Amino acid sequence: MVIVMHAHATPEEVQAVVVRIEELGLKPHLSTGTERTIIGAIGEGTVASQYQGQFIILPGVDRVIPISRPYKLASREFCPVNTQFSVGETNFGGSEIVMIAGPCSVESRSQTLEIAYAIKEAGATMLRGGAFKPRSSPYSFQGLGEEGLEILAEIRQETGLPIITEVMAPEQVGLVASYADMLQIGARNMQNFPLLNAVGASLHPVLLKRGLSATTEELLMAAEYILAHGNQRLAICERGIRTFETATRNTTDINAVPVLKQLTHLPVLLDPSHSTGNWQYVSAVARAGVAAGADGLIVEVHAHPEKALSDGGQSLKPERYAEMVRQVRLIAQAVGRSLKDPVPAAQPAHTL
Amino acid sequence: MVIVMHAHATPEEVQAVVVRIEELGLKPHLSTGTERTIIGAIGEGTVASQYQGQFIILPGVDRVIPISRPYKLASREFCPVNTQFSVGETNFGGSEIVMIAGPCSVESRSQTLEIAYAIKEAGATMLRGGAFKPRSSPYSFQGLGEEGLEILAEIRQETGLPIITEVMAPEQVGLVASYADMLQIGARNMQNFPLLNAVGASLHPVLLKRGLSATTEELLMAAEYILAHGNQRLAICERGIRTFETATRNTTDINAVPVLKQLTHLPVLLDPSHSTGNWQYVSAVARAGVAAGADGLIVEVHAHPEKALSDGGQSLKPERYAEMVRQVRLIAQAVGRSLKDPVPAAQPAHTL
Amino acid sequence: MVIVMHAHATPEEVQAVVVRIEELGLKPHLSTGTERTIIGAIGEGTVASQYQGQFIILPGVDRVIPISRPYKLASREFCPVNTQFSVGETNFGGSEIVMIAGPCSVESRSQTLEIAYAIKEAGATMLRGGAFKPRSSPYSFQGLGEEGLEILAEIRQETGLPIITEVMAPEQVGLVASYADMLQIGARNMQNFPLLNAVGASLHPVLLKRGLSATTEELLMAAEYILAHGNQRLAICERGIRTFETATRNTTDINAVPVLKQLTHLPVLLDPSHSTGNWQYVSAVARAGVAAGADGLIVEVHAHPEKALSDGGQSLKPERYAEMVRQVRLIAQAVGRSLKDPVPAAQPAHTL
Amino acid sequence: MVIVMHAHATPEEVQAVVVRIEELGLKPHLSTGTERTIIGAIGEGTVASQYQGQFIILPGVDRVIPISRPYKLASREFCPVNTQFSVGETNFGGSEIVMIAGPCSVESRSQTLEIAYAIKEAGATMLRGGAFKPRSSPYSFQGLGEEGLEILAEIRQETGLPIITEVMAPEQVGLVASYADMLQIGARNMQNFPLLNAVGASLHPVLLKRGLSATTEELLMAAEYILAHGNQRLAICERGIRTFETATRNTTDINAVPVLKQLTHLPVLLDPSHSTGNWQYVSAVARAGVAAGADGLIVEVHAHPEKALSDGGQSLKPERYAEMVRQVRLIAQAVGRSLKDPVPAAQPAHTL
Repeated sequence: MVIVMHAHATPEEVQAVVVRIEELGLKPHLSTGTERTIIGAIGEGTVASQYQGQFIILPGVDRVIPISRPYKLASREFCPVNTQFSVGETNFGGSEIVMIAGPCSVESRSQTLEIAYAIKEAGATMLRGGAFKPRSSPYSFQGLGEEGLEILAEIRQETGLPIITEVMAPEQVGLVASYADMLQIGARNMQNFPLLNAVGASLHPVLLKRGLSATTEELLMAAEYILAHGNQRLAICERGIRTFETATRNTTDINAVPVLKQLTHLPVLLDPSHSTGNWQYVSAVARAGVAAGADGLIVEVHAHPEKALSDGGQSLKPERYAEMVRQVRLIAQAVGRSLKDPVPAAQPAHTL
Repeated sequence: MVIVMHAHATPEEVQAVVVRIEELGLKPHLSTGTERTIIGAIGEGTVASQYQGQFIILPGVDRVIPISRPYKLASREFCPVNTQFSVGETNFGGSEIVMIAGPCSVESRSQTLEIAYAIKEAGATMLRGGAFKPRSSPYSFQGLGEEGLEILAEIRQETGLPIITEVMAPEQVGLVASYADMLQIGARNMQNFPLLNAVGASLHPVLLKRGLSATTEELLMAAEYILAHGNQRLAICERGIRTFETATRNTTDINAVPVLKQLTHLPVLLDPSHSTGNWQYVSAVARAGVAAGADGLIVEVHAHPEKALSDGGQSLKPERYAEMVRQVRLIAQAVGRSLKDPVPAAQPAHTL
Repeated sequence: MVIVMHAHATPEEVQAVVVRIEELGLKPHLSTGTERTIIGAIGEGTVASQYQGQFIILPGVDRVIPISRPYKLASREFCPVNTQFSVGETNFGGSEIVMIAGPCSVESRSQTLEIAYAIKEAGATMLRGGAFKPRSSPYSFQGLGEEGLEILAEIRQETGLPIITEVMAPEQVGLVASYADMLQIGARNMQNFPLLNAVGASLHPVLLKRGLSATTEELLMAAEYILAHGNQRLAICERGIRTFETATRNTTDINAVPVLKQLTHLPVLLDPSHSTGNWQYVSAVARAGVAAGADGLIVEVHAHPEKALSDGGQSLKPERYAEMVRQVRLIAQAVGRSLKDPVPAAQPAHTL
Repeated sequence: MVIVMHAHATPEEVQAVVVRIEELGLKPHLSTGTERTIIGAIGEGTVASQYQGQFIILPGVDRVIPISRPYKLASREFCPVNTQFSVGETNFGGSEIVMIAGPCSVESRSQTLEIAYAIKEAGATMLRGGAFKPRSSPYSFQGLGEEGLEILAEIRQETGLPIITEVMAPEQVGLVASYADMLQIGARNMQNFPLLNAVGASLHPVLLKRGLSATTEELLMAAEYILAHGNQRLAICERGIRTFETATRNTTDINAVPVLKQLTHLPVLLDPSHSTGNWQYVSAVARAGVAAGADGLIVEVHAHPEKALSDGGQSLKPERYAEMVRQVRLIAQAVGRSLKDPVPAAQPAHTL
């Protein structure tokens, strides 16, 4: 941390900062310029953010600037090699692009099964679907709850697709982990710390989505909560941030893809459905994500979006999703990566 | 909801929208302009947001514009009179300005007691203090937990000040409510819906803080979750939003004060400590809040901010808080309101 | 400036940074921590921002952090005493709150005159009104141009109110300055550097509005352009920034008032009409601004806002403006300041 | 435009809105719901934004929602076919991706020439370089002015690369157009309306960059200013918007690429240098832009970024630019487009 003194700070004020640095077990390092003195505090590690407030309050201090990154386990400096792990046959963090798709909400067995077969045929290797749904309005459909989990488990049985679904509260973690192959932490819960601790302790694979107004640094600090429990099967996901622009529901922070790939060893996915909020832009942004270096895509697909109980406007119809996968496959090849070949659906979707 | 068709939408596309409106039990209302057709869907109420996605996906639809507000119980149209309720002798929503103060975190009994007496003497009538702390970094002080709650209860006993403290997870609500007079939902949990449901069901007084990137409308929708459980002892709190400006930790959305007072009957507080993140600006913004019509202020005070385990940089020392209260009292009078007279603290109050 | 090296930077990379610092005539200052080396560059002054890019590109450099503020003449460190200057009898930067009001656009002589008398009677001492109007759409009313300036000059003659009006291009400065008592730089032109240079060189009083997405630091750097020409009759104006919130047209950055008062000696005004974009919130935010320490208010007033050719929705009717002034007067007194007593307007003032 | 009445609006208030609509020559269209009345105003065209303020001020009106887009000539509805035009042999808006590159600032003849040969060899077909530089600080290098233009013209002569350079003020347009093949309007001048009018009237090819906090709609309204003068050789450019994220200088709004391609017929370019502000992310975001559908890229290249007088940190070295072009070529092919084959530099860069 660097403490910048005011231009007119007195020697006594400088000394008081030095003393405080030493009290905290750190080593002070003064640079006396023509205009002002700046003081480095060496040895702070990841706890700097805790100390900043203690210095800014001291007389004569102008600003306190953190130097160390406030996360460690999530950093590429700590672990230079890409983290890789598998969920079923889907490998996160390798050269294959992870393709996850499915409905926003599990609405019924038949609805979900129809979509599951369709995305599998298109080339997805993992099924998403919400059973517990965080909704801005208490009057919106809140998900089927455990019934939704049961449906997902049945469909995994039938299609062979591993399941990812959202968990919203610490006490749900055990239940959801007993059904799902991977736990999703939604954007609104990125800083729900009891929940992060619970999924960390579960040692279940986790997909952590970036909060609507979270910086990439805060995302990595949230990841640190999970990693600190020894849970290393963790991927993170850009899903759009909130800005002044209203033409799209969110703004895809495409910069975050190379930024995160540089800062962390964790797999980085993109959710173009939420990051645009409009099906018409999903394919373009999906292509962009893979071109920028994303390790996977999680996309909302619905066979009948005009009747979807949530997020119909941003869901692709199966045939459009299939077209998107074809386009993404070409982009993946252009950046030296690949998509898994689609497995022909052994059984056509006959139960609809 | 109003559905705006593309300029070149066909009559069949318009008809399909009309049919879908009728299927949902709503009444369609066409306006055919020279350029394009727009279709009103009448009778939607608070569920419009659920349907938007279903229309935007239909061929020929350009945009879907919600008309009804997505909350009802929180709206001033539903309840034109200001909600008022008391916590101890502190009245929320009346003509008196509510003054809450205290440390960011409960660090020890002596630290908290010193502050409690100081803020009481300055004129505050309620003590804030965190026992469970949401921290961006897993390496930061996470609060004393239940021990912190016990300290708060003892200090209430000693000082007579009612207690407000944060609750972070649904399963903590019972515990925290057994100690605290009022539950605080922090900014990061504004859309933690299981938690909103739990504090709603507790029927305990609640202070709901606005999320860092939540619109005022989303804040009122979060309030609706709590109100829908019949819990009407609810106040809401502006605490700064996240913007591009880095000179302050957050940007105080002072507009939100008159906006919320117009849209809702709930008491509206301001937290100038978090909304600025810098003690040097707290008094100015506290005055601004009351001048703009806020019903109360919640302010961080610490006797030794340079040693605070959290948020030292935005905490006022007791004498500065006392000065702030003097300034705010004058502003309150200028807008026809008042502050409670400080109770001389020479003798600890033994009653609640 | 502080250059933070990567954790694994080599001694050669550190040395290359040191050499580059010396080449630029600065003095390097190394701090070698356990994790990484940081290097201070001493003596940079206001030009640091120019050099940052030259260091970030060097191998082994992680980040470059500016220390010196990039403005000098605008800083309170340079000039600790508040700048004061007068336009007619209106004193900027003193203990009196400056009250400027008038229509968004000069639409006609009668329209402007009616408003001028009304605001004077309410207590304003300076008339605003746009002749050259920056409009987002080419199809919107673009102002009367020089005819508008002539109307303003006539009305000054008749009412005695000094005139402030916007100038949009360098080549207009001479013309506008020949009519107006004070030049306004609008938000969209805050970084129109040729225009800043031109109004700086004019030595005419200037009101510089903050850009929609300008930081307070950038506002002060824009002010620096004007001050660098020796033009010291300069006031700056917060007028709302652009954020994700859509309940109001802009977000009033009330924090900017105490921040700017701390950083600069220049008078700081607030424009609550633009910062809210809705007449219903103007009075509340005007009160907040003065409570927070603003030196003046510039407010849009229109006698018939429902027929205004621009900004009708945010214009106060004269009687509402008069009520606002009464409220602001009480707030001013509460913070130890005052408003000029309104001059009875029964008799037009013939002198300037 | 749709006028939404308050739930408790009186019939008289509704009637007053109807009358006002008719006074403006529009046709009112009432929808009376169970909760509230909404009133469409039909026939407004592009002038709606001018009228909004006139309605929001009327008693009983809750909100006014624009329906018509406020631009016409820029819209795809007006011109469904992609606009195409050529500058030298560079075709904008066709299937070839436009590759523009060069230094941020023209610093000297030799510096610019070295870069020009390098980018030509890498595959760029147009040279960018700033002669008049908008700089946040008055103490930063402001460009060589006309001398810079002369250098650019000489280098065009020598290399055959057409020139694009920024124009900052209306009175510069003639001068700059006499040297440059294409005029650039920088982000800070996107709403400099006198300048938009001047470049529109010049009928010279124009590249219009999006403002830091401009919506895509406002960008198209700025384009409309230029198109309204009959100047149809216009391309627009996403260059990053300002958000809360500080990991990068700006946030690339990749969504804007498909959004703009849908809304307008104008060519859409991306500037990954400014939209990231960091050379390390430029290639990734350049690939993303073309993958998302951008028609071209404008990239900052400098042979010695560590000595660049501006924007060194975001400039690619020539060999990195060449690598970027190779990557972008593969992406272009993956989306069915192409890059022009690089012309071997007839003469090696011998004059350095």
